[in-house]
Amino acid sequence: MMEDGRRRVVVDAVRPQIDGGQFAIKRIIGDELAIEADVFADGHDEIVCVLQHRHGDGPWQEQPMRPSWNDLWLASIRLEKFGTYEYRIVSWVDHFHTWRHDLRKRADAGQNLDVDLQIGAKIIEGAVSRASGEDAKAIRNFADRIVGGTGTASKPFVDQSIGYAAAMDDALLSLMDRNADRSLATISKSYPVAVEDVRAAFSSWYELFPRSYGGAPNKHGTFRDVIAHLPYVESMGFDVIYMPPIHPIGTAFRKGKNNQTTAQPDDVGSPWAIGGKAGGHKAILPELGTLADFHALVAAAKERGMEIALDIAFQCSPDHPYVKEHPAWFKHRPDGTIQYAENPPKKYQDIYPFDFECSDWRALWEELKSVFVYWIEQGVRIFRVDNPHTKAFSFWQWCLAEVKKVRPDTIFLSEAFTRPKIMYRLAKLGYTQSYTYFTWRNTKQELTEYFRELSSHPLTDIFRPNIWPNTPDILHEFLHAGRPAFIARIVLAATLGANFGIYGAAFELMENTPREPGSEEYLHSEKYELKQWDVNRADSLRELIAKLNGIRKAHPALQRNTPVEFHKVESDHLLAYSKVSADGADRVLTVVNLDPRAAHAGWLELPEAWINDGKCEAHDLLTEKNFAWEGSRALIELDPQTTVAHVFTK
Amino acid sequence: MMEDGRRRVVVDAVRPQIDGGQFAIKRIIGDELAIEADVFADGHDEIVCVLQHRHGDGPWQEQPMRPSWNDLWLASIRLEKFGTYEYRIVSWVDHFHTWRHDLRKRADAGQNLDVDLQIGAKIIEGAVSRASGEDAKAIRNFADRIVGGTGTASKPFVDQSIGYAAAMDDALLSLMDRNADRSLATISKSYPVAVEDVRAAFSSWYELFPRSYGGAPNKHGTFRDVIAHLPYVESMGFDVIYMPPIHPIGTAFRKGKNNQTTAQPDDVGSPWAIGGKAGGHKAILPELGTLADFHALVAAAKERGMEIALDIAFQCSPDHPYVKEHPAWFKHRPDGTIQYAENPPKKYQDIYPFDFECSDWRALWEELKSVFVYWIEQGVRIFRVDNPHTKAFSFWQWCLAEVKKVRPDTIFLSEAFTRPKIMYRLAKLGYTQSYTYFTWRNTKQELTEYFRELSSHPLTDIFRPNIWPNTPDILHEFLHAGRPAFIARIVLAATLGANFGIYGAAFELMENTPREPGSEEYLHSEKYELKQWDVNRADSLRELIAKLNGIRKAHPALQRNTPVEFHKVESDHLLAYSKVSADGADRVLTVVNLDPRAAHAGWLELPEAWINDGKCEAHDLLTEKNFAWEGSRALIELDPQTTVAHVFTK
Repeated sequence: MMEDGRRRVVVDAVRPQIDGGQFAIKRIIGDELAIEADVFADGHDEIVCVLQHRHGDGPWQEQPMRPSWNDLWLASIRLEKFGTYEYRIVSWVDHFHTWRHDLRKRADAGQNLDVDLQIGAKIIEGAVSRASGEDAKAIRNFADRIVGGTGTASKPFVDQSIGYAAAMDDALLSLMDRNADRSLATISKSYPVAVEDVRAAFSSWYELFPRSYGGAPNKHGTFRDVIAHLPYVESMGFDVIYMPPIHPIGTAFRKGKNNQTTAQPDDVGSPWAIGGKAGGHKAILPELGTLADFHALVAAAKERGMEIALDIAFQCSPDHPYVKEHPAWFKHRPDGTIQYAENPPKKYQDIYPFDFECSDWRALWEELKSVFVYWIEQGVRIFRVDNPHTKAFSFWQWCLAEVKKVRPDTIFLSEAFTRPKIMYRLAKLGYTQSYTYFTWRNTKQELTEYFRELSSHPLTDIFRPNIWPNTPDILHEFLHAGRPAFIARIVLAATLGANFGIYGAAFELMENTPREPGSEEYLHSEKYELKQWDVNRADSLRELIAKLNGIRKAHPALQRNTPVEFHKVESDHLLAYSKVSADGADRVLTVVNLDPRAAHAGWLELPEAWINDGKCEAHDLLTEKNFAWEGSRALIELDPQTTVAHVFTK
Repeated sequence: MMEDGRRRVVVDAVRPQIDGGQFAIKRIIGDELAIEADVFADGHDEIVCVLQHRHGDGPWQEQPMRPSWNDLWLASIRLEKFGTYEYRIVSWVDHFHTWRHDLRKRADAGQNLDVDLQIGAKIIEGAVSRASGEDAKAIRNFADRIVGGTGTASKPFVDQSIGYAAAMDDALLSLMDRNADRSLATISKSYPVAVEDVRAAFSSWYELFPRSYGGAPNKHGTFRDVIAHLPYVESMGFDVIYMPPIHPIGTAFRKGKNNQTTAQPDDVGSPWAIGGKAGGHKAILPELGTLADFHALVAAAKERGMEIALDIAFQCSPDHPYVKEHPAWFKHRPDGTIQYAENPPKKYQDIYPFDFECSDWRALWEELKSVFVYWIEQGVRIFRVDNPHTKAFSFWQWCLAEVKKVRPDTIFLSEAFTRPKIMYRLAKLGYTQSYTYFTWRNTKQELTEYFRELSSHPLTDIFRPNIWPNTPDILHEFLHAGRPAFIARIVLAATLGANFGIYGAAFELMENTPREPGSEEYLHSEKYELKQWDVNRADSLRELIAKLNGIRKAHPALQRNTPVEFHKVESDHLLAYSKVSADGADRVLTVVNLDPRAAHAGWLELPEAWINDGKCEAHDLLTEKNFAWEGSRALIELDPQTTVAHVFTK
């Protein structure tokens, strides 16, 4: 038999929550978190239900929940601090409330209240021992008034109306609520809520390789060069500048240009082959500059309202100091060598993965955590994490939480291009944002299905997509079609994703030559060599990008991922969708021609909210033209040579 | 940091389950339970995943799960015993599987396998210490063969193909699977499954008041009279005969005919006012007979393939022995009286409810449980429980589980006509079946919405509706329309609900006179007086009911609640739905005219499965007429005066 079978209230279906409270739902600072639950007891007694919440290990704060229909109870919390909140629901059968409620009905029916007033006085007296001095006195006073001032329950009343008036006194209700009998209260599990920075939910990323900004052929770029380049990035409206790993690059098994297995002496290597004589994950490649230069870059970006994001890739080149200092963190082969990365029969001898099953795993975890902490100490709080899905999930769950204890507004972008359930798991474990399959979703059906999935429950509470039309690893063949394809993809990315990013300057300069036919690798990939980008080229998409980022900043509807509604257009090549701000005041309707090679036209079924008195007027933020349509449909014509997309506002 | 962070496998979204395993899903003996889960690890290593299950506290049995697409793993269990099973999933990264898989790829690519065979031999040797004598020897032998028979890992191989052949040997695979390294296995929660009798899911109930079968006016019927009446009930095809409480009835505050507050000396009282001089919940009202008579009734029913269901109403008349023997189980009023049932300002002074918050609750629980156990000992295992929603939920959760320990195939029908979430909660707590809102769902929209809700997840795993067109408490005004209304409602009940029941003989004799206009109570309700039923009346629905029960027995499609698909008919008064058996072989399509006062016709969109070569042929099991339609639609015409409904089979 259970410990106390007299707890009569059931608290069920508490929401929002993920996996019964195993993981935190995600919210943004300043959000109002609406909480609901099914709460009920057996029988007809009244229940009281309160919501409790706390930040971190702080004290619980309490507020009443209000009943809605069908046993649903509601309350909300304003989330005012970064970090983890938790909330829980407490409810109990309240005999005072029940008695008071029934007494009113009895009185209304003209019944004799003698015995009922005595019952009430007893319930009220029960609160005396739970109350503090002042309250106790006041409560006892009420109990006395209710039984007619006699102080004894057996003496007949002079006038029931005195007792009834006392029973109905609001002051008594407050006193009793403050000192309610919670001895048989039901307390729900507590459910965590991760409160993150606004930029976790709305950000525009620009990826660049600092070493390519030296300004002359074969001149290795530095952090100082990036500082000089900041006005350019700022002019396009980005707020996060993400750089591939900035650490010393190994020389053993270094990859040459175009990922050749043998490097030439002047080959700079891949930034992801981390670790060399100059150090490992906490060191800077000397060619990029000093720690002071890095600090200067962080500060210069900050002055312009931008932030530097670092790439954390937990793997080592054979030259990484860890290899000698912590051999236990790697797998050893019977021939005495260390196990390099493999995908049999392929071998990646320039990369040593960590062995997350090693017996020294605790020290490994601590050290990896300390990498984040080190860079946080250098002023960074946004990290793009390379291949998190090849490291133990339990490590991430621990590590992300530990790092957030140091800096609760840290943002982690998961670069897990893997199976969907693994991507979603990483989001549950604490990743703030995630790359997506967007790059490979190009048709109307693919895009519609995928963004419907991403905006479905429970993903909306945990998984924040960061939408990239290109990355240094992914040049999709769709972009082979050139300018109209690049425009379509960035309009989609910038309007479908509250978080989006591009790999520049490859994107705005429409770089689209594959290493070989069928490859998603770039020819002369920046991953293996210094590049020079002519960012002032006349055909650059720089201005379009600036316009899109401007639209995003001006339109709250684009600053969140959901709701997104897809609208019917009578063309397989035209994709239309609309978004709305939380307050309903801002609405953006985007229509994109997904075929970069041909013009298409089709009737669009306009969203109802856009139609007033049978008319719809809209302003295209891209072309700055006005449109007016009669009825509920609009004929949309998009020619990739002139207009790839409309981004309408009302 | 967690206890062992090296457990790399995630087992997620295990299903079917209810509330994370807090409650049991319900199944029927003989069912094949299909189980699935999302199981994956970081990286690219192979995982092994097994399903374990056990009955009660028995030993765990294990079987492999098989991977499907998208990280989904599948297995199923045959449920062969009554009672509670539990199942869980165990999965681990398997280094032997990974090594073997990779080795094949390396060999296929023509790589040198020296070091890899040494690695494998080490993995295999690791299994020796986990294995029993025979296996250990065989495993060591394989390890030796893999490293070329030299027994040392450092000596170069003579011939790699010997080691490779040994590595690929299926016997080695079996040995390694049997002795796998599970030290870092992930074990899921365990999830309970309640396995119940077939009658839990498919039953036809007939309610009767034994006292009305005395055969003469004012002659109190007995169990012996019911025995004589069994052939009649059997002839209609029912398998459960449910009797209102059979215990002594209190005389204090006894209700008179038509629920009058004052009883006449010859009034028999309500069977739900339980307890008198002759005893309480374990006694029999002397007028009904002896315990031996009751045993005879149970046996006589059984002989005819029927079962007796008792009504358990946990409440007491003021004359119940408990009132004196266990005053602590009741609430006491300051005037020294015991608190009677109330719904202020209404008073039910003939009923004392138990106080589930009393300090003696443990003894109360044990006693109430013993009531079920007592009647189980008398041969009963089906109980209709009166107003369970006015007793503590925690009590039911404990009590139903305890009773099932005594008799695991016990069936509990919950008579909780209350809010939906409470009804569903009682189902989670262990109630086998539940009354529903069916009686108040009469229009096409109401019926469609309600049965869609009842056949939705997760209700299908826990909540089994028992569909009643009438009860002694509910005479819905729909039935005021007489015969066509009665026919429509019983066809609906018998074909929508795998479990259904009627209150007879009121139903087949179409009793429909309300106590007063607007009342759902019967005039001269059998609850308060002896009735005489002329069951041989020519207009009785007896034959229709017999036909419906015959159809139900012949058609597996009607022996389960889901799936039920509603079909489009161009009439607001015609409701059409179809069901199919688990094997797809049996299909039943029902069309009912919901308007008892007028004929209606409409085009029915035939279910696709019913159309062959553009034609549909169907046999109406009610009229025994054949129908044939061309195309995908059928014109249905139903005149309540002649044909209220069709129940088609293919």
